[in-house]
Amino acid sequence: MTITRRHLIRKLGTIGGTGAAFGAMSALGFFPRNAAAFAALPADAGRGVRVAVLGAGIAGLTAAYELERAGFAITVLEARDRLGGRSWTVKNGSRIEMQGEDTQVCSFAENVYFNAGPARIPSHHEALLGYCRKLGVALEVEVNSSRSAFLMGDDGKTLQMRAAVNDTRGHVSELLAKALNQGALDTALSAEDKEKLLPFLKGYGDLDENFTYGGSERSGYATAPGAFLTKGTAKPPVPLAELLANQRISSALFDETITMQATMFQPVGGMQQIAEGFGRAIAAPIHRNAEVREIRTRGDSVTIAWRNTATRQMNTLEADYVLCTVPLTVLAKIDADFSSPVKRAIAGVPYASSNKVAFESPRFWEKQQIYGGISFVGGETSLVWYPSTGLNTDTPAMLLACYVSGRDAVTFAKRPLAEQIAMARASVERLHPGHGADLAKPMVVNWSKVPYNMGAWSSWNADTAVADFNLLNQPDGRVYFTGAHLSQMPAWQEGAVLAAQRTVGMLADRVRETRLVRAG
Amino acid sequence: MTITRRHLIRKLGTIGGTGAAFGAMSALGFFPRNAAAFAALPADAGRGVRVAVLGAGIAGLTAAYELERAGFAITVLEARDRLGGRSWTVKNGSRIEMQGEDTQVCSFAENVYFNAGPARIPSHHEALLGYCRKLGVALEVEVNSSRSAFLMGDDGKTLQMRAAVNDTRGHVSELLAKALNQGALDTALSAEDKEKLLPFLKGYGDLDENFTYGGSERSGYATAPGAFLTKGTAKPPVPLAELLANQRISSALFDETITMQATMFQPVGGMQQIAEGFGRAIAAPIHRNAEVREIRTRGDSVTIAWRNTATRQMNTLEADYVLCTVPLTVLAKIDADFSSPVKRAIAGVPYASSNKVAFESPRFWEKQQIYGGISFVGGETSLVWYPSTGLNTDTPAMLLACYVSGRDAVTFAKRPLAEQIAMARASVERLHPGHGADLAKPMVVNWSKVPYNMGAWSSWNADTAVADFNLLNQPDGRVYFTGAHLSQMPAWQEGAVLAAQRTVGMLADRVRETRLVRAG
Repeated sequence: MTITRRHLIRKLGTIGGTGAAFGAMSALGFFPRNAAAFAALPADAGRGVRVAVLGAGIAGLTAAYELERAGFAITVLEARDRLGGRSWTVKNGSRIEMQGEDTQVCSFAENVYFNAGPARIPSHHEALLGYCRKLGVALEVEVNSSRSAFLMGDDGKTLQMRAAVNDTRGHVSELLAKALNQGALDTALSAEDKEKLLPFLKGYGDLDENFTYGGSERSGYATAPGAFLTKGTAKPPVPLAELLANQRISSALFDETITMQATMFQPVGGMQQIAEGFGRAIAAPIHRNAEVREIRTRGDSVTIAWRNTATRQMNTLEADYVLCTVPLTVLAKIDADFSSPVKRAIAGVPYASSNKVAFESPRFWEKQQIYGGISFVGGETSLVWYPSTGLNTDTPAMLLACYVSGRDAVTFAKRPLAEQIAMARASVERLHPGHGADLAKPMVVNWSKVPYNMGAWSSWNADTAVADFNLLNQPDGRVYFTGAHLSQMPAWQEGAVLAAQRTVGMLADRVRETRLVRAG
Repeated sequence: MTITRRHLIRKLGTIGGTGAAFGAMSALGFFPRNAAAFAALPADAGRGVRVAVLGAGIAGLTAAYELERAGFAITVLEARDRLGGRSWTVKNGSRIEMQGEDTQVCSFAENVYFNAGPARIPSHHEALLGYCRKLGVALEVEVNSSRSAFLMGDDGKTLQMRAAVNDTRGHVSELLAKALNQGALDTALSAEDKEKLLPFLKGYGDLDENFTYGGSERSGYATAPGAFLTKGTAKPPVPLAELLANQRISSALFDETITMQATMFQPVGGMQQIAEGFGRAIAAPIHRNAEVREIRTRGDSVTIAWRNTATRQMNTLEADYVLCTVPLTVLAKIDADFSSPVKRAIAGVPYASSNKVAFESPRFWEKQQIYGGISFVGGETSLVWYPSTGLNTDTPAMLLACYVSGRDAVTFAKRPLAEQIAMARASVERLHPGHGADLAKPMVVNWSKVPYNMGAWSSWNADTAVADFNLLNQPDGRVYFTGAHLSQMPAWQEGAVLAAQRTVGMLADRVRETRLVRAG
């Protein structure tokens, strides 16, 4: 490719900054690797320029990493005692502190962990995957979908995923073949297409010679094939009416959502490994337990007042620019001299609720041939997500018994933790009778109560609050806002990475232009 | 479960022996674990009884393992210098010797390997998975299907799997909705079902308000979502006629085949790890390089004459019973005093051809977001199968550039190896232009030429050769035949395991009954 990044930016105009150029490059070809594309910043782009990065989540770490490589003098302030922000792996010894709740201390067995925030990476999230490669973060396959998992209707009846998917297709194929054979679609289809479509539907739905669906091994065995004369026989098909009556039936297609499609990944040892990898690669100081209290611009610099929550000492940090990734729910409460429109925009962004309830458990689901994947149960706990690690061993595992976002999550988070745990356990018991009692060491995360987050992700987008979204995507004086909440993917780490890369690009452009003006 | 194994066998009659009982037990409930069910044999069942196990493939090793645990005195003879039979991992230093071909010596980099035989384990192959657990064989996910892989038509045009799957469903849904709205299926469907089916189809096919399919993000992005205003936009849909014109379109559903469905596994380090695990767990002698030359029954015992292919010395082994897993193509040429019908049956079983061509390569396909999975290309090389190990690293990998069985495989295997390699490379070049030259260190396996196999798997089944299949599933005097070729899954390791378990059960029954007669 001979088109340079600068050339593209010129072609597209500068609105949107470097980020827009990355988007356009994606459109040119084959989802090109954003991270690689970004590596073009010169090593001395930021020489002599001090940047304070607020927040060591994925956005802040991406920005810190790239700014440091471009020669900026950075300092990172992180309110927690760990890196990663929402990219948080809860394991033995981890503490979950939430406003209004008792602290939970995790006592999971060795190698058992729970990704309280993001837990999977699609194979087209190339910017994030690029950093995993650069940082040496080992990945393993996250089994997002198992054909042995279940859809549970409100009546407690279960459909196995393989039957839901394949019996549905069987019935749909039979009905369409019937319509075709009746000539019902002769105006909608050319004779040639019709002639090709009929035999296709036979294979598509596993129909018999008469284009009737009588069940398929794809939906599971009644008898598994074995030695000698033990032949495999297909289960009888689930009738169409029964499939459609299951309130979860649309979830049979969840793994065709573009962000849910195979192949998906998880870092070996937990999602926080990515943040740890960034941490190892950044030489500049990353202050932990550094709670930002005040942000003030004075002339050509910005002063950050921060409190060390461990020592209770107040500190100040002076920088030429600030790159602020603090969630807007939290930023709204920090004393800052932002412009009035910016303050109003920050205060006005709604954040979604999201909850997870995790247990340690023996792998009873693997005895039902479920290795990874998700069962959908509906209600306030929504789903049961099986682990992708330690498969087919006798080691204990983490079972996620609730992952729910949106309105149901608001209701659920209002319940006492003990009730949340009981509901999650009851949902597993209903799905896997006799196994609710196997669940031990519950850990609950209600993101709306987690300090320094107070919400799971921004639920605006460019369609619902265009002016505010646009405003916060531009600097307020010397302060740049960034993070997944300023991208088109507020619930994905990729959004954090791409937003941070764009912001770094904007900042580098400004520094360069400022130098040109001075030199001129 | 209070029904005992013996009780079940009585209920079902003894035809088929213990194996049939396992099949029936599977049918009772939830694919119960065959391996666990089998563990019931008493530890002294075989006290004082000598068994010669011929062949240390998966069937022979399963039998040896179980017989030893049941107190039998076993000796294993294996013609090769390694365990596993077709379950063969080719890596640095491995030699591929084939009749009529020069020996190939593998020089793959560290951690690069090629499963020349079986390369995946479905999550319902519980007998095999049970042994992996018992033997401590670590498994990892085999990514059988990636939505980023391709279907390549005969004209070289590619369809990405996600578009093939989701655009097809979109068009099918639109057509069926049209037929429903025309009232074409009002006699086939109740009004209630019709009322539920229409909104279902909207979600199923990702149709718009007018039940029209205009494309879906499920089929891939034209623009990937990113920072600021870079919104995700769906690719335009592939027209139905174009989907149906692709000769590989039916392979878009290959991952719904019951043996191909997620979750699938592979042993870490290669399939041969299972055989190595058995080898570690078996205390009795396993003679390698032990080529069986003669099998003779004399009175109450059987004598095996075998030749050590390393030392060229002849040896004999005497046993009370023989458990013979030697492929029938090879057994037909061994001098044995089997009954005439048995000899005729052995000689008459056809074996399938199957070929694989593997290369070492940089991971260029991962730059196209393909991590594991299979692209289907048709022709004599059939497919390109991407590796599931070392994902998202810069390490070299094994790329399988041909895996073909059946008639095309016979034609392909007749070509000189250099031509086979050139064809496999050309197929990769056509699919991934510019990357044919990246492929190095080719390794070819034509199973029809591999000594001690002379074929990939038996291509009979109980339907086509009932009498012979039944005959060989019963002992010929003191010789028991077993292996995947005597199961309903001749191309799967699970078939080998289940056949071996059944045979061990039959032999244990006979020994017990013989003792009862003597005691009586």
